Amino acid sequence: MIRTGTHARKSSAGYDLTRLFVGSEGTLGIITEVTVRLYPQPEAISAAVCAFPSMSSAVQAVIQTIQLGVPIARVEFVDALAIRAINRHDNLTLPEMPHLFFEFHGTEAGVREQAETVQQITAEHGGQDFEWATRPEDRSRLWNARHTAYFAMLQLKPGCRAVTTDVCVPISRLADCVAETEKDLVASSLPCPIVGHVGDGNFHVAILVDPDKPEEMAEAEEINRRIVERALAMGGTCTGEHGVGLHKMDFLVHEHGEDALDLMRVIKHALDPNGILNPGKIFRSVRGPAG
Amino acid sequence: MIRTGTHARKSSAGYDLTRLFVGSEGTLGIITEVTVRLYPQPEAISAAVCAFPSMSSAVQAVIQTIQLGVPIARVEFVDALAIRAINRHDNLTLPEMPHLFFEFHGTEAGVREQAETVQQITAEHGGQDFEWATRPEDRSRLWNARHTAYFAMLQLKPGCRAVTTDVCVPISRLADCVAETEKDLVASSLPCPIVGHVGDGNFHVAILVDPDKPEEMAEAEEINRRIVERALAMGGTCTGEHGVGLHKMDFLVHEHGEDALDLMRVIKHALDPNGILNPGKIFRSVRGPAG
Repeated sequence: MIRTGTHARKSSAGYDLTRLFVGSEGTLGIITEVTVRLYPQPEAISAAVCAFPSMSSAVQAVIQTIQLGVPIARVEFVDALAIRAINRHDNLTLPEMPHLFFEFHGTEAGVREQAETVQQITAEHGGQDFEWATRPEDRSRLWNARHTAYFAMLQLKPGCRAVTTDVCVPISRLADCVAETEKDLVASSLPCPIVGHVGDGNFHVAILVDPDKPEEMAEAEEINRRIVERALAMGGTCTGEHGVGLHKMDFLVHEHGEDALDLMRVIKHALDPNGILNPGKIFRSVRGPAG
Repeated sequence: MIRTGTHARKSSAGYDLTRLFVGSEGTLGIITEVTVRLYPQPEAISAAVCAFPSMSSAVQAVIQTIQLGVPIARVEFVDALAIRAINRHDNLTLPEMPHLFFEFHGTEAGVREQAETVQQITAEHGGQDFEWATRPEDRSRLWNARHTAYFAMLQLKPGCRAVTTDVCVPISRLADCVAETEKDLVASSLPCPIVGHVGDGNFHVAILVDPDKPEEMAEAEEINRRIVERALAMGGTCTGEHGVGLHKMDFLVHEHGEDALDLMRVIKHALDPNGILNPGKIFRSVRGPAG
């Protein structure tokens, strides 16, 4: 039983064991207690929503916003198919176009200024129906569509399961990555709505499959494989936040190379010589044929 | 030769080897190439400087500023003795009182608003001579005193060496930690100016010693020991940014405990079984008498 880190905001006191354990998926030890850092509530919050003619134009608007140094607190995108799902699920009438959802934190004047700046930027990229709000009930209404997206998307295909992709690429490559991915999705027989944490360069395609149909599962795997390979070629990662588990083990080899994985294996073996901690996850215990 | 991480802003693809190597002080491998992330230049920058009747009031002003969610880009403090050193070194006439140096990033309106908010807060805590500026040459002038502080402090005692402490504590404990530390420093025979990265809870006491006088070295060690023990008791760390090396090995045992250090030893031994990578640094290869 060890305790890693301190309550100080920064430290250089030995190896960063906290960050080694974060994301190790139970393969190095069991986390029994977690202390999280709280951030102060901002004085004011504003939210905005805007429709775009294409995902690419939406992403370009976000890139320009970030490059201008506007400190957006949250920015999410939702594609046209996901909007259709949300309209059906929540009985809304949003235009069936890609949307961006923004949240701004700061002072009263600051969040107004941020919303105005972003409205100008979105207009330059063909954004329409820009709406923004500061009152909590109005902000909730604007963001509600994003919050119900996952369950709404599942309703596009009753009885389906979602195979969810999770790549993350440098923001500068996100527009390209999404545009090329959209070509794959249009060619697919499966409904594939997209939602994304665009400020991070991370997006998820929910590939809706009937888990009892092997050909649909195979198609989903193929779509995912192409998305991951595209992201890796752009300097990205196969998993922005969902982790590796069993399913992304081969992708991890492509992302880091077997030499880097050998280093992970050495650490794993040193901390778990008997191989009893979530065995077989993240990487194989020896180099595999995929390497 | 391995490459850790990707260009994506976030990832959960296996163990975070980048962060394991950062701060490992050459004990796990040699870093041959580093890619750093660039942040956009803010549209506007403003700087401010303010004198306070005590370090404690200065720190309280910073705590309130952070709690209000003002996104200060930088905030540094400099104590009265360091200001005296700077006045002599740079031929300035700053009041010989503790000072805070601020920098704000944002839009033109945003940095003005931040400076005004902070001016109000500092006034509530007895701040005086608040001055702020946005033009680059005026900002440089305001911050110049902070930038020359280290070399100015060394001039307080010709031929001296500085034994520099580096504790970092939770911001909520910083005022207490500095106030108790000041009592030790007043009682010392050595000049001990203080500068700090107050927004992080990190501060440095430069204990000015004649390295040829063993009694001065011993006094500096004793001051440092008391500061570190105080910081650890407050949930802080013995080193916020300078690292462990040889000098803080015993403190590291106190900070993390021998069990956590054993885990670091296991990782070190797994990656460097022959003990050839910067041997003997950060922790002893086996539990020592200090544990």
